[in-house]
Amino acid sequence: MKNPLKTIRETKPLVHHITNWVTIYDCANITRAFGALPVMAHAPEECADMTKISSALVLNIGTLTPEIINSMLLSAATANEMKIPVVLDAVGVGATKFRDETAAKILGSVHIDIIKGNYSEIAKLAGEKAETKGVEATLISADPEKVAKEFAKSSSSVVVMTGKEDVISDGCRTIIVKNGHEFMGSIVGTGCMAASIIASFAAVNPDYCFAARDALCYFGVAGELAAKKSAGPGSFKVNLYDEVFNLSDEKVKDMMNVEER
Amino acid sequence: MKNPLKTIRETKPLVHHITNWVTIYDCANITRAFGALPVMAHAPEECADMTKISSALVLNIGTLTPEIINSMLLSAATANEMKIPVVLDAVGVGATKFRDETAAKILGSVHIDIIKGNYSEIAKLAGEKAETKGVEATLISADPEKVAKEFAKSSSSVVVMTGKEDVISDGCRTIIVKNGHEFMGSIVGTGCMAASIIASFAAVNPDYCFAARDALCYFGVAGELAAKKSAGPGSFKVNLYDEVFNLSDEKVKDMMNVEER
Amino acid sequence: MKNPLKTIRETKPLVHHITNWVTIYDCANITRAFGALPVMAHAPEECADMTKISSALVLNIGTLTPEIINSMLLSAATANEMKIPVVLDAVGVGATKFRDETAAKILGSVHIDIIKGNYSEIAKLAGEKAETKGVEATLISADPEKVAKEFAKSSSSVVVMTGKEDVISDGCRTIIVKNGHEFMGSIVGTGCMAASIIASFAAVNPDYCFAARDALCYFGVAGELAAKKSAGPGSFKVNLYDEVFNLSDEKVKDMMNVEER
Repeated sequence: MKNPLKTIRETKPLVHHITNWVTIYDCANITRAFGALPVMAHAPEECADMTKISSALVLNIGTLTPEIINSMLLSAATANEMKIPVVLDAVGVGATKFRDETAAKILGSVHIDIIKGNYSEIAKLAGEKAETKGVEATLISADPEKVAKEFAKSSSSVVVMTGKEDVISDGCRTIIVKNGHEFMGSIVGTGCMAASIIASFAAVNPDYCFAARDALCYFGVAGELAAKKSAGPGSFKVNLYDEVFNLSDEKVKDMMNVEER
Repeated sequence: MKNPLKTIRETKPLVHHITNWVTIYDCANITRAFGALPVMAHAPEECADMTKISSALVLNIGTLTPEIINSMLLSAATANEMKIPVVLDAVGVGATKFRDETAAKILGSVHIDIIKGNYSEIAKLAGEKAETKGVEATLISADPEKVAKEFAKSSSSVVVMTGKEDVISDGCRTIIVKNGHEFMGSIVGTGCMAASIIASFAAVNPDYCFAARDALCYFGVAGELAAKKSAGPGSFKVNLYDEVFNLSDEKVKDMMNVEER
Repeated sequence: MKNPLKTIRETKPLVHHITNWVTIYDCANITRAFGALPVMAHAPEECADMTKISSALVLNIGTLTPEIINSMLLSAATANEMKIPVVLDAVGVGATKFRDETAAKILGSVHIDIIKGNYSEIAKLAGEKAETKGVEATLISADPEKVAKEFAKSSSSVVVMTGKEDVISDGCRTIIVKNGHEFMGSIVGTGCMAASIIASFAAVNPDYCFAARDALCYFGVAGELAAKKSAGPGSFKVNLYDEVFNLSDEKVKDMMNVEER
């Protein structure tokens, strides 16, 4: 896809989120800053109806409860029927048994098009030995690229591992995204925001592997530009929103730092 | 009322919110920036007690569930008994059947003093043909001023339709507020914040039609002032809070852009 | 403890929160800015497991429900067994009977290491005559230092009363912290953030009385530095995060404004 950002801004896809209570505002606000339309609706009475009018679905298990999981399954089943992309952000997998089991239950019940998490979350999901410190990645012993590729094959999903370098794989192609800035890890929520952005790009691009790559590049470039002007995480977050808003496909083209293997 | 902002800041009315999980912080924070005191309490065990010590009540159905609706009805009934203003923010009406039915249930069970929404939300509530894209207004075929006026008459409420131009009516008076800036639509939450501000002004002014007008003018003026200093939605939101905090009745007087019809 | 901030940044303690939906993001984000790792998890299915891998627990009753209270008791019991510090932020005690009873229930069921609240919240908890206006302190007739000291003795907890001057007591030592800036009261959430910071300091310092003192000093110093650069509550909050991030033990040493009685 040639101009994904322009396409998002022109078509304004509705991106339905069933997400956590910590970063819910930033998930909505970054979706809007990129030009898509966010909507959050988690009641079982309406979540499938909201998915029906949406162009992508984000499931984020950051503060999950059994009620929320039920709604996630209802919405994901609807998304599967409609063939719109479903992004699972596996927040905290590897920290508690409940998160591990919930993620497994979701993956076993519906099709997830894009599975996203940090290194230890994805490694744990993929069956490797890994522990997550709350929602923070810890070092994994396995090779991230291999984990992403194998897990993508076995799950028939695009797998996205975020970290200093992001690893994306659909089982055939494996892409490393090197854009971004360490300030992005100094504020809470950039991981969750990344899932919303991936969903926004996947809403307009049926090649989910490239959609994920573009999403992380564009977000990373905005982060690099914002970091130059920032004295700390407060000003960084403000500048990040400004840079996303003022981003263009042209601007990103010159700054993309991607390797395909 | 001559100096509504000064009055809010001197009397510090408590504004009780039962609201959504996306913009709940900004609803609280903007209420505080205007000088009122926000409180959020949604448990059925305490919500009526909290309403009892409050001067206004905001109901926002942005992320509603049956439990939340139950609490809304309890608090609104208490507010009606105490004759304090109840503001309903009809977020997402026109997007799902559940939202439409919930809004209808609330309007049929308790008295709402001020019904607020964007053009398509209010049009749908008023029985017109209208659809809402998640929580985003779509074009309506009906004349907004007529919709507001007729719906105000039939509901015995002040009706507030927010958009590029805001339309306010109590069935007799119809007021157009032209203050504001397009940056306000570039961030998530300004609509919800507007409801909190309307409630803060209505808490000190028994003429709810003028309270709503003042609320939207003051907020809009702050938005215009903030926009001049802002490079994007990040800096705009920061400046918006600063400008609200530094607002005065005098400053707004010169910048009010209102038409009464 | 000589360099508490350096210690937090090197050991990165995990701070588990069961908290309210209004300020949950800022509780997480300030924890991160100080160098600790926040995690929020409230489902009864996992909350005790999350506490088990944590170094401190924050309970904040700002938007409590019976389900949340149940999870708080599960996590606090686990924290007690593990001997990690439990901070209770008594938000809104003195506003409704439900809050009063809930706080009493928590205090009667588990051991709270640090009880924090504003003047009227703590006075009410301590059995004095006091009313809270939503979540806002009102004047109390009792002497705050005496209240803190007596209540610390009777509860075997460190008691922290926040206000223009903060009062901390463990029943023997009583400490007054005078750092801070009035801008901190102009935004929603600094009180809740203070509880997260206290928990972060207590996670690395077994002397909870001094941990609370340090937490409030460091936060207050950051507030003073931020205020100098700020035009209102919007820019203040941005600068507050930047100043916390750029704080050092050395910087604070020169600015600490503390009295021990």
